[in-house]
Amino acid sequence: MKKNAFYAQSGGPTSVINASACGIIEEARKHSDKISNVYVGRHGIVGALNEDLIDTAKETSEAIHALRYTPAAAFGSCRHKLKKISEDDSEYKRLIEVFEAHNISYFFYNGGNDSQDTTDKISQMSIKMGYPLTCVGIPKTIDNDLPMTDCCPGFGSVAKYVAISTKEAALDIKSMCTTSTKVFILEVMGRHAGWIAAAGGLAASYDGDAPHMILFPEIVFDENKFTSQVKQCVEAYGFCVVVASEGIQYANGKFVSDSGLRDAFGHAKLGGVAPALANIVRDKLGYKEHWAVSDYLQRSARHIASKTDVEQAYALGAKAVEFALAGKTDVMVTIQRKSSKPYTWDVGTAPLSEVCNVENKMPEDFIDPTGYNITQKCRDYLLPLIQGEDYPPYQNGLPAFAKLKLMSVEKKLLI
Amino acid sequence: MKKNAFYAQSGGPTSVINASACGIIEEARKHSDKISNVYVGRHGIVGALNEDLIDTAKETSEAIHALRYTPAAAFGSCRHKLKKISEDDSEYKRLIEVFEAHNISYFFYNGGNDSQDTTDKISQMSIKMGYPLTCVGIPKTIDNDLPMTDCCPGFGSVAKYVAISTKEAALDIKSMCTTSTKVFILEVMGRHAGWIAAAGGLAASYDGDAPHMILFPEIVFDENKFTSQVKQCVEAYGFCVVVASEGIQYANGKFVSDSGLRDAFGHAKLGGVAPALANIVRDKLGYKEHWAVSDYLQRSARHIASKTDVEQAYALGAKAVEFALAGKTDVMVTIQRKSSKPYTWDVGTAPLSEVCNVENKMPEDFIDPTGYNITQKCRDYLLPLIQGEDYPPYQNGLPAFAKLKLMSVEKKLLI
Repeated sequence: MKKNAFYAQSGGPTSVINASACGIIEEARKHSDKISNVYVGRHGIVGALNEDLIDTAKETSEAIHALRYTPAAAFGSCRHKLKKISEDDSEYKRLIEVFEAHNISYFFYNGGNDSQDTTDKISQMSIKMGYPLTCVGIPKTIDNDLPMTDCCPGFGSVAKYVAISTKEAALDIKSMCTTSTKVFILEVMGRHAGWIAAAGGLAASYDGDAPHMILFPEIVFDENKFTSQVKQCVEAYGFCVVVASEGIQYANGKFVSDSGLRDAFGHAKLGGVAPALANIVRDKLGYKEHWAVSDYLQRSARHIASKTDVEQAYALGAKAVEFALAGKTDVMVTIQRKSSKPYTWDVGTAPLSEVCNVENKMPEDFIDPTGYNITQKCRDYLLPLIQGEDYPPYQNGLPAFAKLKLMSVEKKLLI
Repeated sequence: MKKNAFYAQSGGPTSVINASACGIIEEARKHSDKISNVYVGRHGIVGALNEDLIDTAKETSEAIHALRYTPAAAFGSCRHKLKKISEDDSEYKRLIEVFEAHNISYFFYNGGNDSQDTTDKISQMSIKMGYPLTCVGIPKTIDNDLPMTDCCPGFGSVAKYVAISTKEAALDIKSMCTTSTKVFILEVMGRHAGWIAAAGGLAASYDGDAPHMILFPEIVFDENKFTSQVKQCVEAYGFCVVVASEGIQYANGKFVSDSGLRDAFGHAKLGGVAPALANIVRDKLGYKEHWAVSDYLQRSARHIASKTDVEQAYALGAKAVEFALAGKTDVMVTIQRKSSKPYTWDVGTAPLSEVCNVENKMPEDFIDPTGYNITQKCRDYLLPLIQGEDYPPYQNGLPAFAKLKLMSVEKKLLI
């Protein structure tokens, strides 16, 4: 008897998570003899808990195809962490109940560490409850911190955006530095790991090229060392470009972004790392500075996504369906790097038990001894991930992204 | 006898000012019977004052062609305002002296209001000194505030970048708004005029589309009205996207970016408009918010330049040479809009005396009665300017921008 599949998007969106959704739905449609329909949780797993399912059969193949070049989470995502089974298993039971009601026997969950953990738990609970589900996790996170996979879809496109933005802005500063701005600071995401900040380093091809400094969250922020390095750089090149992770901290553990500023009533005001560093540069060195904070722009910039990233995101979605139909369960699909030069890769699987709660940190030998730059080894790892462009179609000067109907599946359960 | 031409870039760079340089140099090379060489001021007019000229004859045609897709000011720019002739005419005299020494009889100056004024003054001084120069100004400014031209090269590409970034980030917020960020604020340039902020409005196609609010510098910032509007928007749509000009002010003239924050020593700390607005949203409404400041990224984002903007920038450069050779002088080349639908345009000229010191403000009927959105009239004006994409070539995942030799012309004057 034909079964349905369930798919949900989880956590912070990326510019390519919909490419994974596209891979899943298009591949499932190829196997309509086995998978009747793909139901998607509206706003992620919360949709499943509320029996709020989106009927993808109502979407045209054109609309589904357009997901490949549409950023953000087209079906809605959420931040909702399920409780530990040992503490409260009611949500897991509810999920299985909803899946059973809708004849769902394939569970595809697209997210980061927590989502892979949830997938693992749901797999266990489904067995326990006598309604076994085929459970496959699809990695997604700009933080690039999932283990067992060469990289995480979403990261390559952020890396490309940050590298290009750094390169372009650096040309701007260089143009004017004799009479205007001397220091430029770009704040990027990555609170716990410096993967995204490291990508800024790809903008440099030769010694002296911008960025001149990368501030990694892995390296303690030393204000004196920072200012002396900025000064040295301005004196050598006429200007200084800094790429700073939002997560950098002082030796005492205080975030640099927690600037200690107070309003008239004494309330703490949060700023950001870039303006805090800019204030240091101005106060201590007297240089004219400018700063930028890309924030969500970096992870939604589908207009300049990495082609490699898009292809991997799509392939992981499609392969997840293939593996599930072949009976693989309780696994996450992974990117397996076969060679770096030229970059070749394949899709494999890793047991969820080996993925859950393991953080893929940046290796120590990816940061050079100064603490302010990436090593050749890091460059060799990163460069393949930003290769190729994959432009969306444009209409009237703007990207023409997917327009979905997002129609609901009729509810079958009492609330 | 064959003469040389002088060209210089002035003020803040744009992603297409080099396309104008490309137009000038390529056109001049077509007329090598009349123009022997194009000398460029290193770091703008300061290069001419220092007799520090770049010899473009040393650049290959490939390198010159690459200027068309290279952002920032490839020959260097500067902020240097010449004194009033009535106060001190020594700099003007020095310029004419340098031009005479290098057999320069065409003066092309690429910049904003001040540069057009300088061009006008140099033209007058050259006549007074008996060394008449043919002087043609080429408009350039992301601020779009030059009169007598339909638009200013550089603006269309910033407009496209801001519209696309707003559209992409809005999809990101929308994805997650049920359980995460509800308000997103994008700060854009344009201290005195809301042209760039207005461009964010192009991201919306239908009622309710993001951006939900545009904060123009032309409209007094009313904190209560702002917060009530944000609240209303979050309640109606689940989220609220704001595009804010860096130049917005309170009724008392205080900049919103001047947040009044003090460090531990009581020193004023400058932040930015976006974090200041974010603090208001969090304090007054309790919504989770995120904010971005594109700063130089927006004006150097050649990777997503408007094709229309690139074509206009190039055409203005090429036509400046054509007009100069036809004997036109003391003029600025201009874009003449012939029709809006379809957008057709031509290059004309305007007397510099009519350009100088006139600011092209945003018409009142471009802002809707709420003060938070653009009108259809504004949309009809802006939309043609962001049409088309003009991608640079890529190498190894990054744009392959022009690499110039920038060799100096031998000095002829004693210092």
